[in-house]
Amino acid sequence: MNAFDKMIARQSAIFSRLCIGLDTELSKIPEHLHGLESPILAFNQQIIDATSEYASAYKINTAFYEQYGLSGWEALKQTIEMIPNEIFTIADAKRADIGNTSAAYARAVFDDLNCDAITVNPYMGYDSLAPFLEREDRMVIVLALTSNPGSSDFQRLISDGKPMYQHVIETVLSWKRNASIGFVIGATHPEELALIRQYASDAVLLIPGIGAQGGDIDAIMKANGNGPVFINVSRGIQYAGAGEQFGEKAHEAAKFYKERIGYTA
Amino acid sequence: MNAFDKMIARQSAIFSRLCIGLDTELSKIPEHLHGLESPILAFNQQIIDATSEYASAYKINTAFYEQYGLSGWEALKQTIEMIPNEIFTIADAKRADIGNTSAAYARAVFDDLNCDAITVNPYMGYDSLAPFLEREDRMVIVLALTSNPGSSDFQRLISDGKPMYQHVIETVLSWKRNASIGFVIGATHPEELALIRQYASDAVLLIPGIGAQGGDIDAIMKANGNGPVFINVSRGIQYAGAGEQFGEKAHEAAKFYKERIGYTA
Repeated sequence: MNAFDKMIARQSAIFSRLCIGLDTELSKIPEHLHGLESPILAFNQQIIDATSEYASAYKINTAFYEQYGLSGWEALKQTIEMIPNEIFTIADAKRADIGNTSAAYARAVFDDLNCDAITVNPYMGYDSLAPFLEREDRMVIVLALTSNPGSSDFQRLISDGKPMYQHVIETVLSWKRNASIGFVIGATHPEELALIRQYASDAVLLIPGIGAQGGDIDAIMKANGNGPVFINVSRGIQYAGAGEQFGEKAHEAAKFYKERIGYTA
Repeated sequence: MNAFDKMIARQSAIFSRLCIGLDTELSKIPEHLHGLESPILAFNQQIIDATSEYASAYKINTAFYEQYGLSGWEALKQTIEMIPNEIFTIADAKRADIGNTSAAYARAVFDDLNCDAITVNPYMGYDSLAPFLEREDRMVIVLALTSNPGSSDFQRLISDGKPMYQHVIETVLSWKRNASIGFVIGATHPEELALIRQYASDAVLLIPGIGAQGGDIDAIMKANGNGPVFINVSRGIQYAGAGEQFGEKAHEAAKFYKERIGYTA
């Protein structure tokens, strides 16, 4: 089964296109977990238990684990191991480097961490992504138009009548590859999303920026049409509750977002 | 002392602008070290001992350590700790993400790993680099025109009569910041380097691509003029020798490159 088929199998089994971010920070974990040996793992285990029935994917941002050094890297690996096999896993790592170096990153994320997908940065061009693109059982999700304010600094520069992010999408789609392919499009850009679906109708889109970042779900789902998507919510689910009831609150929030996003085959 | 002053102090003390890459891979370490508890650390310690008198900086590419998982991350941290304090350290990590996430990467590289500088990717714009740029005792080195073939895919797209990489350099130099600033320019582009020095005469440039990647030292040093630079060599020093004499061979290669690069105050 390739990564795209795994995505669709999971989404159609639970009628959900919700992706849940596991961007765990010690300062945001409820107090009653702080005495445990690994508060991060205890928190993540309860979040996964509470939300997995609605999760088509979990997205783990490597930064939040790397900030804790060795113990963080260990928690990252163990968190990925906790996730049930049928649920899609995305390492939100935004990597890319020259070819022989990207090959090392591909081994780190696909072989050591064993994630189904990785997010990558297109700035360094084809050979920087080739080691990821050659993996037929994985998905490579390329940054295109991100959700943050800085997305207008370079991604929207116009060249030959088209914004940079459109060059990225069209060029990446023209490259030979074995991996499934996807793009990151921020939920803060529904008008651009509708245009992107005109030239990338079948590409998987990973859409973050719902909730804490202000993206509008209805506008996004309308602009996306029937294209394959993961709609990501991180803080809005992980930190829906702050006290001992955080698991229940996360469960309710995941159910809410799954239903608001909706599902069409 | 800010990071730029640390760079200049080291370079003027040893008359060297050589930066040595520590991109260690188990498959390239001499056989006689493989029985040890940590072949990577034993190798790196000997490379550092053999080359430190010529090293204005060491550049550690995080990918090569991440590929070994937990033990790799531990070796990364311990390698940085081995480097004498007066030598500049660059985490070649090519990170960047939305603001709160980049803040976690800044903590990982500046606080946990305690490097003087980090390489970052500009694609996501200002707020993705702000958490790095606010650190007054560190240096932020932004990818501009990289050494690899894929650098022509997006970095050279023309917008408003200028290539993308020029937009990146000029825009980043216009941003407010506390950190020292630098740019990555591949040694494979001497003509463009001469042009870049016309509008970024004082910026620090980190120039990789000498040796294994085919960059020409003389052409690069002429194009650079008197601008502040780190000229990086990785494989050409680390793997100059393959057997028990690898330390001596690395010493000779570092001396060779230091002298070929030359030094002007």
